[in-house]
Amino acid sequence: MTSANKSTRIGSSEFDFLAQLERRALNRNATAQGLSSLVKGIGDDAAVIRQNDKTDLVVSADLLVERIDFLLDWTTPEKLGHKALAVSLSDIAAMGATPRFAMVSLGIASNLWEEGFADAFYEGWFELADPLGITLIGGDVSRTPNQLVIDSIAFGDVPTGHAVLRRGAQPGDLIFVTGSLGGAAAGLKLLQTNPKLAETAVSHDAALIHRQLTPEPRTAWGQFLGRERLASAMIDLSDGLSSDLHHLCEASDVGAVIDAELIPTDPALSAIESDRMAKLDLALNGGEDFELLFTVAPENERKLPREMEGIPLTKIGQIGGSISGIELEFAGQRTPLEPDGFEHFGTADG
Amino acid sequence: MTSANKSTRIGSSEFDFLAQLERRALNRNATAQGLSSLVKGIGDDAAVIRQNDKTDLVVSADLLVERIDFLLDWTTPEKLGHKALAVSLSDIAAMGATPRFAMVSLGIASNLWEEGFADAFYEGWFELADPLGITLIGGDVSRTPNQLVIDSIAFGDVPTGHAVLRRGAQPGDLIFVTGSLGGAAAGLKLLQTNPKLAETAVSHDAALIHRQLTPEPRTAWGQFLGRERLASAMIDLSDGLSSDLHHLCEASDVGAVIDAELIPTDPALSAIESDRMAKLDLALNGGEDFELLFTVAPENERKLPREMEGIPLTKIGQIGGSISGIELEFAGQRTPLEPDGFEHFGTADG
Repeated sequence: MTSANKSTRIGSSEFDFLAQLERRALNRNATAQGLSSLVKGIGDDAAVIRQNDKTDLVVSADLLVERIDFLLDWTTPEKLGHKALAVSLSDIAAMGATPRFAMVSLGIASNLWEEGFADAFYEGWFELADPLGITLIGGDVSRTPNQLVIDSIAFGDVPTGHAVLRRGAQPGDLIFVTGSLGGAAAGLKLLQTNPKLAETAVSHDAALIHRQLTPEPRTAWGQFLGRERLASAMIDLSDGLSSDLHHLCEASDVGAVIDAELIPTDPALSAIESDRMAKLDLALNGGEDFELLFTVAPENERKLPREMEGIPLTKIGQIGGSISGIELEFAGQRTPLEPDGFEHFGTADG
Repeated sequence: MTSANKSTRIGSSEFDFLAQLERRALNRNATAQGLSSLVKGIGDDAAVIRQNDKTDLVVSADLLVERIDFLLDWTTPEKLGHKALAVSLSDIAAMGATPRFAMVSLGIASNLWEEGFADAFYEGWFELADPLGITLIGGDVSRTPNQLVIDSIAFGDVPTGHAVLRRGAQPGDLIFVTGSLGGAAAGLKLLQTNPKLAETAVSHDAALIHRQLTPEPRTAWGQFLGRERLASAMIDLSDGLSSDLHHLCEASDVGAVIDAELIPTDPALSAIESDRMAKLDLALNGGEDFELLFTVAPENERKLPREMEGIPLTKIGQIGGSISGIELEFAGQRTPLEPDGFEHFGTADG
């Protein structure tokens, strides 16, 4: 599915299921009419539909479920509206596309409805959407017996043929990441330890919780990389660096080496956590940073700006020619890096 | 939202909310870049995006929630897969479009996952999708604590400018409906009376339950009406004739008169229910028949085929020039027909 990258959060059996569904969808429809206008279906951050000789349309859906993906205790309707849109815009950015339209399907229990939850939710949603020129074009609203569910669907434009897929990384390509890592997972840990921090946290704690509750999609970076065709492959960091780099490498059929010293940990995380391994663990295996991870041919490195809208870029490694799998260079040694991914709350898988 | 027509099933406050959201989306984005490529946003069966000078893309989302929209006791995963896609294809048909792609976001509890629910769900889904040449292009899968939710998203093609909207009905236009009405609601009543009928029903009971659990979208009719530009306005019957005709008339700013004698009640319904008023009530106010309701200029009436793929067409009334609201002609008298809509199970609104 478009969000196969998220599947590890619900266990590896779902990932197998999605891979199987991808094969099935392709096999079954090999002879379908008009297949030509589908550029990429299941198996990337978003699907790509050919629109005309100038633009392709990319589209992604993300389902957020109460008590699996969020707790109402430590967020607000406005923040949830922001996050629901942000996670889908992150997928659009990871395709190198410019967000244009969005839909929301909202399943909501009566008590929340009566409290005016939906109005507040859309306040937060529009606050993120409006400056980006994103138009709400549809969706659905339904009651639920007792649970909040949100399906967030975003559409983006990309110049025809420019969509950046997960496949496409070549041996020798350099690996880059936007912004900083580990902050969202650290924010989640803080909230799990003390839910009241959602309201009372200050300084670095507040910054980390902010990263967890109101992630900022890397729209400008994604748009730039798609337009300029500088990224050979790209994915957004929703599960965590170790997992998402695996997804990218598997799709591209390559291996990679990344350097632990170079991984940009969240500055607020560095301020509250002095243990180097703990920080590295959060940066590698924590999820929901919604930064972009992408690869660039060495000759294109000089064309990359150092930062965009205040978000810097960091080179963390290289796609390997001969190795399979991913290796982490740490303290002079290389060790295999397994996908660890991000376990949301653990309510589903126990 | 694209499914504003469904909102009455969850209460009129949601309808007001959607109307308000429609105005807000339009106001906020009046100056957004590239607005030109959005033909129709919130407020119809689907949104319409301009693709090129040959085709427009239409897209619709429908959220189905366990214990609100269905009970697992009386359906099967395969039937649910069919219905989830069917309700969205009905929206695509109501735009006069040809279905092309679809996405599914599935929120599923662990126990159902382990029982292989998702595989069976997609079996039913593909059984409807494959003959129509529809490609699954994405979606999401997430665990839920204890409830099944499905967001079904469908995409269709329509020749540029041919999308049939709810607005567009003109005074004097004739009102048509495909197939027959009241069967799905009668099937629901049977299941509510005796859930075991889902497995044991035969003959007419089975036919009615079949209409409730596995509706058939009127894809061929929708495609024909869009291609030939014969329908001036169209909507699918998800809430029920009385409600959905109101939606169409409100969008078109017209009134209508329909003739009770002409309304095609489901043949299986006629076989088990002899009370004429009870049948009329189901045909007018029952929901989920997923037939198409559309209007045609009188001079185009002769261009309509009598049936398509075995599904007949019935003329039931006319758009009125001077009247506002909708009137029902019955036993020689005209009385105002209020929207009654369809109350699903009543678990949400009590």
